[in-house]
Amino acid sequence: MIKVVKIGGNVIDNEAALERFVADFAAIEGAKVLVHGGGKLATRLAEKLEIPTTMIDGRRVTDRDTLDVVTMVYAGLVNKRVVAMLQAAGCNAIGLSGADGGVVRATRRAAKPIDFGFVGDISVEGVDAEFILSLTERGVVPVFCSIMHDGAGTLLNCNADSVASAVAVALAQKTDTELVFCFEKRGVMADIDDPDSVIAEIRPQSYKELLADGVVNKGMIPKIDGAFRALESGVKVVTIKHSEELNCPSGTKIML
Amino acid sequence: MIKVVKIGGNVIDNEAALERFVADFAAIEGAKVLVHGGGKLATRLAEKLEIPTTMIDGRRVTDRDTLDVVTMVYAGLVNKRVVAMLQAAGCNAIGLSGADGGVVRATRRAAKPIDFGFVGDISVEGVDAEFILSLTERGVVPVFCSIMHDGAGTLLNCNADSVASAVAVALAQKTDTELVFCFEKRGVMADIDDPDSVIAEIRPQSYKELLADGVVNKGMIPKIDGAFRALESGVKVVTIKHSEELNCPSGTKIML
Repeated sequence: MIKVVKIGGNVIDNEAALERFVADFAAIEGAKVLVHGGGKLATRLAEKLEIPTTMIDGRRVTDRDTLDVVTMVYAGLVNKRVVAMLQAAGCNAIGLSGADGGVVRATRRAAKPIDFGFVGDISVEGVDAEFILSLTERGVVPVFCSIMHDGAGTLLNCNADSVASAVAVALAQKTDTELVFCFEKRGVMADIDDPDSVIAEIRPQSYKELLADGVVNKGMIPKIDGAFRALESGVKVVTIKHSEELNCPSGTKIML
Repeated sequence: MIKVVKIGGNVIDNEAALERFVADFAAIEGAKVLVHGGGKLATRLAEKLEIPTTMIDGRRVTDRDTLDVVTMVYAGLVNKRVVAMLQAAGCNAIGLSGADGGVVRATRRAAKPIDFGFVGDISVEGVDAEFILSLTERGVVPVFCSIMHDGAGTLLNCNADSVASAVAVALAQKTDTELVFCFEKRGVMADIDDPDSVIAEIRPQSYKELLADGVVNKGMIPKIDGAFRALESGVKVVTIKHSEELNCPSGTKIML
């Protein structure tokens, strides 16, 4: 069994939350992989450097200067900080962009209908699961940022959720794999205003009912749909939980 | 036989020189390791961010902000760019800081007599040669930046020449190792003004004579002394040559 855990920018941006998470992640026994988002540092650095941020449909356009900024922040500062913290916690982490060891190859998104610049999409075929397993078999823990490459020398900014899913699905072809999405809520809520209303388990049938009843918050639908796609591609279980509850029996388990 | 090649900022800063070097490095057969310096990008970024640069005795002081900048530039932008370029050239590179895989642990330099901030020194004992060889045995090519860690969660800015030497010496305990320093001259010159006056070979006895005759340029003495220390610790041969002549039978070979 291998566990792929994804954390978002909310953890990266909060020193205390990150320290707590690192201790929890280091305590997970067995093979594991971490995928981290970027956080607000890149936006702040771009602002300081007076690089204009272009957003289309709520998504940042990654022009050449922005690519340099996200590469510096995600693959450099954030990735190495997290790796150094994990090392200090006794977890033998190794930071990886997609280019490192050629481990994840992405495809630059087509410039039409919207040109998002140096943005990549990942397919399972682009992930070298064997290389990841060659590390975990030695007790080394891969820590992915969301900067990938196209194999032809160009770095590409990717979505960290998609990186986590693709890595988990690729690993699932070789070994039992669990995927955990950490975020700032305790799971999928029956009542968005009640933190204790976490739905413990969602399966295809109950998901249909939740959708029909309008219980599931709109923002959660892409996450849950993505979880089902990962499950259909071989991942055993996808858990959505709070980053502070990594090792607690909490959150929402999504299963087939 | 494994080859450890070090390039400096002059190659990093020059896109054409870097492309040429990458093609040459990719063409080296057999096990190899690259160590790269930083170049002027970090200084330029620090200037743009209005982080004051403090120099003592010609050496940059690495305060917290400067550490963040060099981590972003060396471990992020430069390292991932070089790795992506090598991947495109068919070389299965993996970028590493010292924290990654715990591969190189450094010791923070004492704050007295001069406090250089987050600067580290490396000893051979801090290098995990077995991990490096576990990569090269799979055909993976480690590409080191000069950001290391102390094992307790702190990143440290180190000298890239020292990284290259320590890595080569550690590898030399396990396998035959060659160390190549690339720089902007064709080797050690008998006449600094004559690029064709490269001294092909220096051995301890001839080095004494060169020193006695005042032939060796002052700036070269630390490089050659360092080369002899590496040789005395088991490295087979140290070559000092131009980065454009990586695969030419040129440069100065230093041997015992």
